[in-house]
Amino acid sequence: MPSYTAPTRDAKFIVKEVLDLPGYGNLPGFESATPDLIDSVIDGCGRFASEVLHPLNQVGDREGCTRHPDGSVTTPTGFKAAFDQYVEAGWSTLSQPTEFGGQGMPHVLGFVLEEFVSTANHSFGMYPGLTNGAVSAILATGSDEQKALYAPRMIASEWLGTMNLTEPQCGTDLGLIRTRAEPQADGSYAVTGTKIFISAGEHDLTDNIVHLVLAKTPGAPDSSKGISLFIVPKILVNPDGSLGERNAVQCGSLEHKMGIHGNATCVMNYDGAKGWLVGEEMKGLSAMFIMMNAARLGVGIQGLAQAEIAYQNAVAYARDRRQGRALTGPADPSAKADPILVHPDVRRMLMDAKAYTEGMRALYLWAALLVDLSHKAATPEEREEADMLLGLLTPVLKGYGTDKGFDVAVNMQQVFGGHGYIAEWGMEQFVRDSRIAMIYEGTNGIQAMDLCGRKLAMKGGAGIQRFFALCDEEIASARAQDPLAPLADALDRALGEQKAATMWFMQNAMANPNNLGAGAHHYMHIMGIVSLGLMWLRMAKVASSALSAGDGDDTFYQAKLTTARYFMDRFVPDAGSLRRKIETGAEAVMALEEDAFATAV
Amino acid sequence: MPSYTAPTRDAKFIVKEVLDLPGYGNLPGFESATPDLIDSVIDGCGRFASEVLHPLNQVGDREGCTRHPDGSVTTPTGFKAAFDQYVEAGWSTLSQPTEFGGQGMPHVLGFVLEEFVSTANHSFGMYPGLTNGAVSAILATGSDEQKALYAPRMIASEWLGTMNLTEPQCGTDLGLIRTRAEPQADGSYAVTGTKIFISAGEHDLTDNIVHLVLAKTPGAPDSSKGISLFIVPKILVNPDGSLGERNAVQCGSLEHKMGIHGNATCVMNYDGAKGWLVGEEMKGLSAMFIMMNAARLGVGIQGLAQAEIAYQNAVAYARDRRQGRALTGPADPSAKADPILVHPDVRRMLMDAKAYTEGMRALYLWAALLVDLSHKAATPEEREEADMLLGLLTPVLKGYGTDKGFDVAVNMQQVFGGHGYIAEWGMEQFVRDSRIAMIYEGTNGIQAMDLCGRKLAMKGGAGIQRFFALCDEEIASARAQDPLAPLADALDRALGEQKAATMWFMQNAMANPNNLGAGAHHYMHIMGIVSLGLMWLRMAKVASSALSAGDGDDTFYQAKLTTARYFMDRFVPDAGSLRRKIETGAEAVMALEEDAFATAV
Repeated sequence: MPSYTAPTRDAKFIVKEVLDLPGYGNLPGFESATPDLIDSVIDGCGRFASEVLHPLNQVGDREGCTRHPDGSVTTPTGFKAAFDQYVEAGWSTLSQPTEFGGQGMPHVLGFVLEEFVSTANHSFGMYPGLTNGAVSAILATGSDEQKALYAPRMIASEWLGTMNLTEPQCGTDLGLIRTRAEPQADGSYAVTGTKIFISAGEHDLTDNIVHLVLAKTPGAPDSSKGISLFIVPKILVNPDGSLGERNAVQCGSLEHKMGIHGNATCVMNYDGAKGWLVGEEMKGLSAMFIMMNAARLGVGIQGLAQAEIAYQNAVAYARDRRQGRALTGPADPSAKADPILVHPDVRRMLMDAKAYTEGMRALYLWAALLVDLSHKAATPEEREEADMLLGLLTPVLKGYGTDKGFDVAVNMQQVFGGHGYIAEWGMEQFVRDSRIAMIYEGTNGIQAMDLCGRKLAMKGGAGIQRFFALCDEEIASARAQDPLAPLADALDRALGEQKAATMWFMQNAMANPNNLGAGAHHYMHIMGIVSLGLMWLRMAKVASSALSAGDGDDTFYQAKLTTARYFMDRFVPDAGSLRRKIETGAEAVMALEEDAFATAV
Repeated sequence: MPSYTAPTRDAKFIVKEVLDLPGYGNLPGFESATPDLIDSVIDGCGRFASEVLHPLNQVGDREGCTRHPDGSVTTPTGFKAAFDQYVEAGWSTLSQPTEFGGQGMPHVLGFVLEEFVSTANHSFGMYPGLTNGAVSAILATGSDEQKALYAPRMIASEWLGTMNLTEPQCGTDLGLIRTRAEPQADGSYAVTGTKIFISAGEHDLTDNIVHLVLAKTPGAPDSSKGISLFIVPKILVNPDGSLGERNAVQCGSLEHKMGIHGNATCVMNYDGAKGWLVGEEMKGLSAMFIMMNAARLGVGIQGLAQAEIAYQNAVAYARDRRQGRALTGPADPSAKADPILVHPDVRRMLMDAKAYTEGMRALYLWAALLVDLSHKAATPEEREEADMLLGLLTPVLKGYGTDKGFDVAVNMQQVFGGHGYIAEWGMEQFVRDSRIAMIYEGTNGIQAMDLCGRKLAMKGGAGIQRFFALCDEEIASARAQDPLAPLADALDRALGEQKAATMWFMQNAMANPNNLGAGAHHYMHIMGIVSLGLMWLRMAKVASSALSAGDGDDTFYQAKLTTARYFMDRFVPDAGSLRRKIETGAEAVMALEEDAFATAV
């Protein structure tokens, strides 16, 4: 049986020491985030995740969800009781706005919660997981009435929310949506169509489910410009918030999937269901992107999450399992074999996991701070800068974060040898569960195109230039400090590769946009390496100061320096080969005739 | 539902045009391998695999195997009938020695069969898959009586064979084996112990199963030097070959696994089972390695196999699924969206798959030719050289081949977007099935150590020097031919990285063997890139000549040149970053204190 210990020490290190959250006390909501409160929230999240949610993780995988003939869906044993505890403890309201019943705490803490929940039980985390994004979309674009009616109950997790985008013929290309919304005399719309892959589309955790549905109104352009967003509640809501009649929306079936069995992935049938327009007609895409951006950050965290739990269990196994001898001679001559942790290749995989998970944790928490700053920073310039950097980092967190997270989960499974392939050890579930994160909320190929096709060009390249400047500043300051200089040099090499790749795109993408498309995936990975490298340099700086100051906890801080060195040694070289691949351009990628892909007989 | 078309054209291209098998007519058994016969064997294998075995692939995954209370095991619906067809058609005897009832054809053809069978149905292929290796071990080290009694029936697939190495406490480190073999008065041994992860340990395909079991005799050293190999048949065999009593060996349970559900992975309980020593006492390890080396080549082919079928289905999907528009403008303005094959990132993944699968096919078929040459070449020098190269390539085929094969299967799943995660499309099965190949028959970390710790040093480095010389010759000859020169230059760069990494090991592994261990995985991947690059250069040369000669089939040959270029553009750069990782040495890999791996709270 796998186990999970929430990495509370590391989360506190990043939140308090690296990001210095207590130093932002001048921002609204941050004044209450004192060091003591931060500790107590992080510890509380950690306990809840490991003690309540994690024990249900294998149960959820084995049982899955059950759809009954009436279209209702039962979640796995224990999920409902755990969800009630989640709501009672107030976790769902942590970083939600106080005017709608939230606690108004920084998103930085809300994101820590999200990590711990996802790590303990990915499938469980998906039930409340999309609700925050749905609330954000309603708060940003809904009417006052909609905000008052839905937001407080969704924030309190009395009702959960869903995102309904995909249809059988329509995934990435939302212009292909066929679901129709016909205006009715009472101001509502009759929504008709089939949506697929709807996570948490139906379940028994809450009395109501608030579906946010993309559909086309009559006469709207038959493209992504014609899409509108609708609230379609499972149970109609009376003006006083009490529940009325059942709406004409039903779960038609549950998908059989590779993993995340504990989450109900539904085909949803809308049969003239009553819906209400959110925001303006035909402006659904921008409202949807509010949800989507929140969801993408959450998925990036899921990439880290499954890597983290896989890492923890691989470490325990590597310390316990004895096989062979250290290459330098027996490490434990009293036993017949050494723990496999002595083997360099096992350590390589574990160090790789550690360098990724801790770097990713710093990166998503920085992104969380940017979310807060984009809303609450004192000046419009600061808010805009935060928003710009967040936009740039979102596809990297989602795309690079989940590619590498899956990789790490696979490597951690490898540490177990044959036992990694056996269900009871739990490692193969982590691999199966983590696989979805590379796919949903925009495949990682889409993330790469979002980064290279949209975000790089954003505001004339101001975002990427600001990112480069941040890295340059960090490198320059670290070079002045003795133990950090080689780390800074390494990051500078990676950054140089990214700058060169950026320049290559500028020079070659206009002539042929395929040059951008054929290199976008690689560019996203270079930027992932540079972003994690920036985090490692910051963490190394804090760790180095703490060691000099003799604050104690030397094992922890020394490990940061060692892992930073590992990162620079073993992650940075890839930035060079990725750049060289980009610079080969699109020719060999695009040259093959279509028929030549088929198998010749 | 996924489909499978055996890549017969490509197999014929490699066997006849690249390896020139008909040119080896002077070798025993090869004289009958005329071009027509080669075609007919390859076509026959292909038909059998795609028409008989592939339709059972999803069935096997869904049903799995069933163990009954008496310890007997039923394979999935259709497996027994398909196996009977396999035997009747004579496939099992294809490349087995004629003196024991085989057809004596080149292993090159036997390996083509193995690829097609594994691709069509990985789990099915594992039932007969280990028998060849078991036969080889018996033929190499068994008594004349054992050879006569077991080999013909195993070659005819009347009985199948298994390999019993692993025990709960003992995987890689065979010195930890606890299974004991006590000599009996009649010359047999009583074998007692528990073996785990025994593929095809029990099933209903054949009347008998011949287990080859590693065990320790009384007084033997408690290390790998004390291991002996035993034949332990499920049903005792009378001297005339007829079946006698049930032996005291039973399947105790079936493992629940991530994939290969159609194969029975058994816990085998030996309870004083009657066994017979194969070869000399305490020389079991070398006999075992005869089986193991054959098995490792087979596993390398499995890595290719799942990548191949995943590729074929991804191509079909990418041509059919319409989503978005080409970056260069609508490719099919008559429709609302273009096939996703127009998107550079989709093409990148497909080209990557094509470059890997076709390169791997050439590599394993070259290895198969080396198997043949190591037994049948005219002079001892030629046989020794073939054996040496084969020893060097085996861990690369197994380790690099399955790492990259899994990667490709994952990418092909990615082409399907959300549908790739849904069971009915079949892509996720390919990923789950292919994952085992990185683990069994020695994890890929063990392959890397076999390559770097044993094979590089073999005969004073003669093997690797011969490999380098082969590459140098191929590069020099290609540089003289105009369209091949840039490909040769690229391969030369990769080769240069491998030579440098080899040199670095020579200079740094003596001082600290961990420098070797910490870089072995990366070295194996460099050599994988160089080996596939060598194959691509050879294939490009043949394709280029065919195009010049105007032999027709231009689409096929032109695709070889384009894919060779893709390989050089997109695979070769990694050799450089892998080398740089190796050259950072073991320090950051080994520096962390053991406690610092654990999660701090």
